[in-house]
Amino acid sequence: MRIIETRRAPNPRRVRIFLAEKGIQVPFEEVDLMAGALKTPEFSALNPMQRVPVLILDDGTVISESVAICRYFEELQPQPALFGEGAVGQAMVEMWNRRVELGLFAAVTAAFRHLHPKMSHLEVPQVAAWGEANKAKVVDMLRLLDGELAARPFLAGHHYSIADITALVAVDFLKAARLELPEGVANVARWHAEVSARPSAAA
Amino acid sequence: MRIIETRRAPNPRRVRIFLAEKGIQVPFEEVDLMAGALKTPEFSALNPMQRVPVLILDDGTVISESVAICRYFEELQPQPALFGEGAVGQAMVEMWNRRVELGLFAAVTAAFRHLHPKMSHLEVPQVAAWGEANKAKVVDMLRLLDGELAARPFLAGHHYSIADITALVAVDFLKAARLELPEGVANVARWHAEVSARPSAAA
Repeated sequence: MRIIETRRAPNPRRVRIFLAEKGIQVPFEEVDLMAGALKTPEFSALNPMQRVPVLILDDGTVISESVAICRYFEELQPQPALFGEGAVGQAMVEMWNRRVELGLFAAVTAAFRHLHPKMSHLEVPQVAAWGEANKAKVVDMLRLLDGELAARPFLAGHHYSIADITALVAVDFLKAARLELPEGVANVARWHAEVSARPSAAA
Repeated sequence: MRIIETRRAPNPRRVRIFLAEKGIQVPFEEVDLMAGALKTPEFSALNPMQRVPVLILDDGTVISESVAICRYFEELQPQPALFGEGAVGQAMVEMWNRRVELGLFAAVTAAFRHLHPKMSHLEVPQVAAWGEANKAKVVDMLRLLDGELAARPFLAGHHYSIADITALVAVDFLKAARLELPEGVANVARWHAEVSARPSAAA
């Protein structure tokens, strides 16, 4: 199997961190999405959504969407459980991963994609007002998460999960969107330092 | 347990259809999101994201996010499997559910939320240009799905799944967004007629 990715894009990093936490090694193949690699007929045949990462299994099966790739590996190797355990535990991880995706990851990437001049050929049309609106959403969500992280070590509870991976990648992508952590989010800063210190964060 | 919802909103319908397919009965409690019910301190304490549906378990545990609620019930009662079976099967459902969420459901709801005058107090700020941009995304995604549905009965393969539920709710919500199925998507129309004929569609 192999994974096609663009190393500096945020979604492939989610998969790399997930695999590092699992201790699973998969060969990566780099494509340059800024050079139009995702718009070619060859890549579109692999993933009609024209996004990285893409996992290609040895039998040719193609799995795209970062969380779908992560779920494949969770099923292959359940421990450590990064999607939670038990009905309530799995629901809590799903809930927090989605809250972070919807409220933070999507907002940071929208601010980047709709405002950065280099993204004008990938985000069509760029809507600057939508990019600007998302800057406020980012701050609101970071403040909400700060309140949550006052009461527990990780986003979905007492165990590190895919929700922490999604949030870590989103926070680290603030810089690309020309944003930074607002003041008054000390709990987010504590959590960010801790998850950044795990070896997986360098994956 | 009970579920708090607003019956005419699209996300609660995803959960109702899912439960109907499972044959699980849960009492529903209606709140009027258009009257500001989600902005109250009481509701925000249940779900700080201020969205419906919300599942409240008998021990007081609160689960929000439609897919997290569905996953809770999938774990409690695995059959019929609506999140797929096996590592590849589950990854395929996750992939298609996310493609449909990202490419269709999110686009239809963005067109609705950013363009409908009644949504001006819930979508702040409304960005009309972003609503308009999403109309084209809806058409593009329906054409992509039409090609996929030429080759198989359901979105994720040979079995009905949560990806079909997400797509059905999105297609039926076109009307609220003042959109309709474009021409030339006969496979989508065939699939839509089939999934709409299931008793769960009336849930």
